[in-house]
Amino acid sequence: MSTATLQNTKWQSCIDACMRCAEACEFCATSDLREQDVKMMATCAQINRECAVVCWTSASLMSMDSQFAKQFCRLCADICDACAQECDRHNVDHCKRCAQACRSCAEECRRMAR
Amino acid sequence: MSTATLQNTKWQSCIDACMRCAEACEFCATSDLREQDVKMMATCAQINRECAVVCWTSASLMSMDSQFAKQFCRLCADICDACAQECDRHNVDHCKRCAQACRSCAEECRRMAR
Amino acid sequence: MSTATLQNTKWQSCIDACMRCAEACEFCATSDLREQDVKMMATCAQINRECAVVCWTSASLMSMDSQFAKQFCRLCADICDACAQECDRHNVDHCKRCAQACRSCAEECRRMAR
Amino acid sequence: MSTATLQNTKWQSCIDACMRCAEACEFCATSDLREQDVKMMATCAQINRECAVVCWTSASLMSMDSQFAKQFCRLCADICDACAQECDRHNVDHCKRCAQACRSCAEECRRMAR
Repeated sequence: MSTATLQNTKWQSCIDACMRCAEACEFCATSDLREQDVKMMATCAQINRECAVVCWTSASLMSMDSQFAKQFCRLCADICDACAQECDRHNVDHCKRCAQACRSCAEECRRMAR
Repeated sequence: MSTATLQNTKWQSCIDACMRCAEACEFCATSDLREQDVKMMATCAQINRECAVVCWTSASLMSMDSQFAKQFCRLCADICDACAQECDRHNVDHCKRCAQACRSCAEECRRMAR
Repeated sequence: MSTATLQNTKWQSCIDACMRCAEACEFCATSDLREQDVKMMATCAQINRECAVVCWTSASLMSMDSQFAKQFCRLCADICDACAQECDRHNVDHCKRCAQACRSCAEECRRMAR
Repeated sequence: MSTATLQNTKWQSCIDACMRCAEACEFCATSDLREQDVKMMATCAQINRECAVVCWTSASLMSMDSQFAKQFCRLCADICDACAQECDRHNVDHCKRCAQACRSCAEECRRMAR
């Protein structure tokens, strides 16, 4: 096995965290739109959409072994923090799980970007 | 826990397979471009790029609990088949692993789309 | 100029329509979430999210000159139709403009996929 | 027409530049893979892939009127610069056009992020 084939494993736990976070954010946005009180969840749905697209892109760039992955993950961490903070304001299951996914992702992104 | 919060778990194994496949394809394309004989890998890199973008999108649509997820996954399965077939032609580790990820993804996509 | 360099111009009007549609859908979803009566717009926001991600991917696959672009655009057209139909139900400017972008996109996608 | 419906026009020229750049990068990568001397174009194809995914995401975030769009576009500009620099090394039409699209995009991203 050549060295090249082992490149993306170096970021595997961060790739996994970004994928989990993207998935949780997409689902949290969908769930927000299905809540009785949608209006209360509108800000949450919006930031979930933004966080999702950024996390998918982080996962993609790391999978490509991109030279820009670290800079990108630093920014991704900030967006995950903001999304976790918004989700923390809502006492519903999908927000709790999303906040947790966002915090794990922010932590992994900061670790890999060091 | 409301019913809504459990929606995306119904497709979890297919979401996972699409994420793994997208990751493997991105990395296989990068690895193709780093091979001694890049020319031999050019078709592989191209189909990897196409398969990756489609698998990320499948994962995203399923995470959103989209009404179009099944139709999308049917098409995704065909693209994964084509990518696996190309990767099977190359006796290098990243292609072998990518072919396997593509076949798992095609299988999961067909199962969920039934 | 080699033949290769002219490849993506063959689909240029469809690429443009997909980009415009993706942009309109993203903005329509954001605008839905800012409306006074968000609940009335929840279905619209959801389908806008789905249509956006599919249109970005169509634009990406056509830009890559993908062999799967036609199959993909056929599916994209159906999703655009569904999004236009939902937007038509709402008498607000962002929905009107989004419905129009969706219909143009569906038409272009069907034309290129013939 | 409400104020909300006018939000994304504020970034329209930057959204357009990001879309054009993403399209040019995807096509440049495809064209690289079709060149006689693929090996000489391997670095170009890689950075094109990275720049493409970042530019699609910038266009998406701006279309959503995201609060993170400015930070994101600052990073996007750096990646576009790097891609333009690599494309400038190759005397082929698709690289020339891609370099131009990258420079326009970098300029627009820096202007909007001020």
